[in-house]
Amino acid sequence: MKKYLLAPGPTQVSPEVLLAMAQPILHHRAPEFAKILERVKQDLKWLYQTQNDVLIIASSGTGGMEGSVTNFLSPGDKALFVNSGKFGERWGKICAAYGVKAEEIKVEWGYAVKPEQIKAALQKDPSIKAVFTQANETSTGVAHPIREIGEVVKQFEGTLMVVDAVSAMGVFDIQTDAWGLDVVVTGSQKALALPPGLAFVSVSEKAWRQSEKAKNAKFYFNFKKEREGLAKNQTAYTPAVSLIVGLDQSLRMLKEEGLQNVFARQGLLAKATREAMKGLGLSLFPKEYPSDAVTAIEAPQGYDGQAIYKDLRVKYGVTAAGGQDQLKGKVFRIATMGYMDTFDIITAVAAVEMVLKGMGHPLKLGTGVGIAQEILLKK
Amino acid sequence: MKKYLLAPGPTQVSPEVLLAMAQPILHHRAPEFAKILERVKQDLKWLYQTQNDVLIIASSGTGGMEGSVTNFLSPGDKALFVNSGKFGERWGKICAAYGVKAEEIKVEWGYAVKPEQIKAALQKDPSIKAVFTQANETSTGVAHPIREIGEVVKQFEGTLMVVDAVSAMGVFDIQTDAWGLDVVVTGSQKALALPPGLAFVSVSEKAWRQSEKAKNAKFYFNFKKEREGLAKNQTAYTPAVSLIVGLDQSLRMLKEEGLQNVFARQGLLAKATREAMKGLGLSLFPKEYPSDAVTAIEAPQGYDGQAIYKDLRVKYGVTAAGGQDQLKGKVFRIATMGYMDTFDIITAVAAVEMVLKGMGHPLKLGTGVGIAQEILLKK
Repeated sequence: MKKYLLAPGPTQVSPEVLLAMAQPILHHRAPEFAKILERVKQDLKWLYQTQNDVLIIASSGTGGMEGSVTNFLSPGDKALFVNSGKFGERWGKICAAYGVKAEEIKVEWGYAVKPEQIKAALQKDPSIKAVFTQANETSTGVAHPIREIGEVVKQFEGTLMVVDAVSAMGVFDIQTDAWGLDVVVTGSQKALALPPGLAFVSVSEKAWRQSEKAKNAKFYFNFKKEREGLAKNQTAYTPAVSLIVGLDQSLRMLKEEGLQNVFARQGLLAKATREAMKGLGLSLFPKEYPSDAVTAIEAPQGYDGQAIYKDLRVKYGVTAAGGQDQLKGKVFRIATMGYMDTFDIITAVAAVEMVLKGMGHPLKLGTGVGIAQEILLKK
Repeated sequence: MKKYLLAPGPTQVSPEVLLAMAQPILHHRAPEFAKILERVKQDLKWLYQTQNDVLIIASSGTGGMEGSVTNFLSPGDKALFVNSGKFGERWGKICAAYGVKAEEIKVEWGYAVKPEQIKAALQKDPSIKAVFTQANETSTGVAHPIREIGEVVKQFEGTLMVVDAVSAMGVFDIQTDAWGLDVVVTGSQKALALPPGLAFVSVSEKAWRQSEKAKNAKFYFNFKKEREGLAKNQTAYTPAVSLIVGLDQSLRMLKEEGLQNVFARQGLLAKATREAMKGLGLSLFPKEYPSDAVTAIEAPQGYDGQAIYKDLRVKYGVTAAGGQDQLKGKVFRIATMGYMDTFDIITAVAAVEMVLKGMGHPLKLGTGVGIAQEILLKK
């Protein structure tokens, strides 16, 4: 059966990138590779909208998150983290693993954190050294108001703003410098449309200063060593050469499209998906700020979200995602980030219609597709 | 210019593996991927000659080394490490980063550690919880007598034998179970002939028991979580999907060849390289136990090793390696591990002859090639 990947990571990889990665392997100390690293480090700054260093690490995004705790904090330091889903929880677990006293702002799944909650917590305890949050909580499909939170945290001299933008960077606007985001993590397998295996982390001067005092143990995720390496167009340890060659191609394609055009395309595709689902009488799971990266859709009353996810895959070859943890069975998720365009959305919506119809749902085939087409015509 | 990669990692990747990795990306929770993971976890046991779990981690080999410290030791624990080159040093640095009191057995570069040195150190202090060594020290091209060291460490109930086999596994015989090797690390970019980006770690039951008491901080390199994931044909965090698809192909090819045949081929290629260099009047850097992974050759008197390395690359497109740290300028290194065969060796030897001739060295062209041919005829 022909396969269609619409999962929230890994996402589809373009033929151009697959072919770039299929070239004979380069040695990581060869001048040809140094040239590529020089180019991608500039292009990553473009993507991040930053003048900060953007480090390149051979690991999944979680490795980047771990380094964003250990490089800036010491055991016993205080931190604040937003927990509005599975990836928010992860900040708490990493802090706990490294002895950081992380206070939790628990947000009901489906909602975004309010900047005032962050402000109140920091005012109450200005000794908090870092605020950890997601830009987009992949498990719920809710985007947090990063710009506004950034403005709050900026007021606190001793506090870093650390953002997990793994499923956000390259999907919607994240202005690293303008918004005062000190540390921003992303991964290769989302909007960058590469296979998994690379993490990227931008680090501000404020964060570098704080890193001088950070006593947490680290070796592989040593950001200072990575910064020194990058200055010489190297990495601290053997880089994932083929993925970086693919990254070079992926960033070239994004640059050709233009950042605002990328955001507009990603926004329109997500909107078409959301409106189509609503037009089919389905409810979106997010109660506010639905993100343009992934759309979480509630299973209709009497239907199992996991069964919908499974039928999409087994009957039609469409790999979407089910719900995680407390959302298991309640939702299914369709990701539209990355190397996606008009007819990926049509495919996704048509497949959902056909799966629900096959389960006995009384929808009229083509209803959602028509709504999506209407919106996508505006492209 | 056509390029020839003969460096000690990354090594050449076969067209079969490059094409496997160029296939459309799989989702890491899809049943197709679980099947691949199931297969590679069995095939890795075959490669490692073990019944132990072999964990698969998205990082360079150094990440696997870090986890091999943090998962088995607590701050303040005593350890022993063999330092006979750049990678031996690294064990010491990782231990220091995590507060492990690691005693160093310093071995002059070019020599192997003596099992009696390990025995004496453990007898003097049986509270040492782990011995860290390389199977092959990539910076010097010397193999340590792992089997004999394993037999020593096996006698000490509270001591783990931890081996960095990054440039050894799949090159020469490493019998994980028979030799009592508790933790064995390797990477994707050496004999497995994949791009960099994967680390592999085997863990014995003795090591798992010790891991229960290990208090060192860890999150991304959490071996227990990886073991639990692997039991369900998953990994703890998003795996490097495309590299694992390539791994499946690489292991298939090695299995078709047969492990003893792989070792015989690798041994013969290395021997041909060594004898050809000696026949040219050059000296090998190793004073004992030259490894079959990489051959370190002393630059002839009055010649600069870095210039030889550079001319190989610039004039002939042959990427070998220079010397690291104290060996910079004194040696150049030719790696023959991985996806290599007869005419890679002929290429390497011929290129060295042509570079030296071009520098004014009075050798007779074809001398080394003839010696290599003589040996390779025995294949």
